[in-house]
Amino acid sequence: MRIDDRFFMESALREAWRYQGLTYPNPAVGCAVVKAGRLLAVEAHQKAGESHAELRAMLRAYEALEGRETAVDPADAWAVHDFLETIDPECFRGVTLYVTLEPCSHRGRTPSCARILSRFPLHRVVIACADPIAEHGGGADLLATAGIGVDFGCCREEAEALLEPFVIWQRRAFVLFKLAQTANGRIGGGYLSGPESLEHVHRLRAVADEMVIGGGTVRADRPRLDCRFTGNPAPDLTLYSRRDDFDRRIPLFSVPHRRVEIRDDLQPLLERPSFLLVEGGEGMLRALEDRIDWMLLYQTPKLSTHPLSYNVDQKLEYLHTGSLGADLLIWSRFG
Amino acid sequence: MRIDDRFFMESALREAWRYQGLTYPNPAVGCAVVKAGRLLAVEAHQKAGESHAELRAMLRAYEALEGRETAVDPADAWAVHDFLETIDPECFRGVTLYVTLEPCSHRGRTPSCARILSRFPLHRVVIACADPIAEHGGGADLLATAGIGVDFGCCREEAEALLEPFVIWQRRAFVLFKLAQTANGRIGGGYLSGPESLEHVHRLRAVADEMVIGGGTVRADRPRLDCRFTGNPAPDLTLYSRRDDFDRRIPLFSVPHRRVEIRDDLQPLLERPSFLLVEGGEGMLRALEDRIDWMLLYQTPKLSTHPLSYNVDQKLEYLHTGSLGADLLIWSRFG
Repeated sequence: MRIDDRFFMESALREAWRYQGLTYPNPAVGCAVVKAGRLLAVEAHQKAGESHAELRAMLRAYEALEGRETAVDPADAWAVHDFLETIDPECFRGVTLYVTLEPCSHRGRTPSCARILSRFPLHRVVIACADPIAEHGGGADLLATAGIGVDFGCCREEAEALLEPFVIWQRRAFVLFKLAQTANGRIGGGYLSGPESLEHVHRLRAVADEMVIGGGTVRADRPRLDCRFTGNPAPDLTLYSRRDDFDRRIPLFSVPHRRVEIRDDLQPLLERPSFLLVEGGEGMLRALEDRIDWMLLYQTPKLSTHPLSYNVDQKLEYLHTGSLGADLLIWSRFG
Repeated sequence: MRIDDRFFMESALREAWRYQGLTYPNPAVGCAVVKAGRLLAVEAHQKAGESHAELRAMLRAYEALEGRETAVDPADAWAVHDFLETIDPECFRGVTLYVTLEPCSHRGRTPSCARILSRFPLHRVVIACADPIAEHGGGADLLATAGIGVDFGCCREEAEALLEPFVIWQRRAFVLFKLAQTANGRIGGGYLSGPESLEHVHRLRAVADEMVIGGGTVRADRPRLDCRFTGNPAPDLTLYSRRDDFDRRIPLFSVPHRRVEIRDDLQPLLERPSFLLVEGGEGMLRALEDRIDWMLLYQTPKLSTHPLSYNVDQKLEYLHTGSLGADLLIWSRFG
């Protein structure tokens, strides 16, 4: 294994994938900080409104250099920003930053990363891909003007895959089809996933604009489709069905503060810039076959004789695989 | 993400998994070298008869410190050993080594790792798990006697999983069931895997003592079951079948220099300390259900409507997942 720019960028990418989707409407971003070959920190943006990856990583790197934790809350962007404004810039002399996305130049809900970074005598900022939003760009120029070396393109393809949902949900719905299955592709037989996977689904539901579910699954499974494992409000819900013959005692209808709509045409939903989380089985997969962007498989560690599977012909592209408790989490591009 | 002992040991584990099975009859082992927080090298044992992980890693670490490659062949254990005997021990002062398995103390086909390591003023050797073979042990004592700090147990559970095949094939057959499937668990429809996966299978076949395949698969697929993608001799073959009614024109019968046996009782094979690579479908899975140690899934990036799947109820435990070209490689404990 080579310990080079790719090695450090891959660490940053791996950390960022842990929060894929969960940062909505922000992009998933990771950042690694290296001084004289020493990896000081690898952090990611975790949630919109919280610190960007660069801020978290610089705070952790400072703590690693000092050999002690600070009292600063790493999630609090302004607190980290203000703290980084007070420290001696010399402590970061010669440091190289690896960021999966160009540091932002604009000050919004959170401070500008490029501006705070340009305070420090960094050696280099290695950027996997440029900011795709014109008005957010300029971060690299800001760094270069401050005399910091800027390198673009290390792991660009991998970083573009990480960024793809963000690029899509700027202009239309990003459609993520979620499925829990056994290792041999069976989707029936009650809860398949472990508690960590269930919590992860509920965290995705909590940030998504809307959940879409097939009518057949609703009739068969009588689900609740809320976020009870994370305590968040349940997302609005669209049932994809030609007929409105649902038993109103199905739990999903009585979740407080949630809109439930029944539609046989998803087109208007798909055009709106948003994050749609789609759950269901073969029927739903076939109905949205040409409109699904990514598939998220929660693959549980068992083989099953349950007859329920799904029959679809589709190419996938595996983008990232992680572990969630005993389960595998497999992110793939669909079609 | 914390940059601590676990971080470095996990790098070593990840590198070692790339050679799981391929090091037979040796164990898969990884090693990382760190100086003042700087990760200098992460290497693994790749093939029996070649350099152990520690030797490869020390050579690469030296090259990283010197900033230049040497002319030494990293695979050649004696060449690396002799080279490490000549360099100034001071270059490794303060270095910490992370090894997934206790460095060997005995001199066999390859030199003793513990002995060469004890030449250097290392700060610490962090060992995930002790050598399970009594006459190979003592490496840690040798290091400690040389004044090097030795820490046991970091990532022990993960390292024991990595080591499990080695422990099993010391006393009986290690049974690895290999299956290529789509992401929805379909196993029919011709070659499913990409070229990297096919090459990996052939590298496993080349080191295994014996391949076992179900008679039904032989009749249906008429395979060759050789190692043509790697140019190695084909492994000996056992066809598991009650009847010997095979068409002798099936290619596997005419592979030169290979023994083909037809058996309806695999017990004698299973008792012999060895590495058995089992291929087949549901019939073979059911026949060996209680005797399979690990399952290796080559999961190809597609969903398929092909009707051929496999119906078995079994618990798995995912041990490691990697990428092979476009495919996923999923190692799991079976049952």
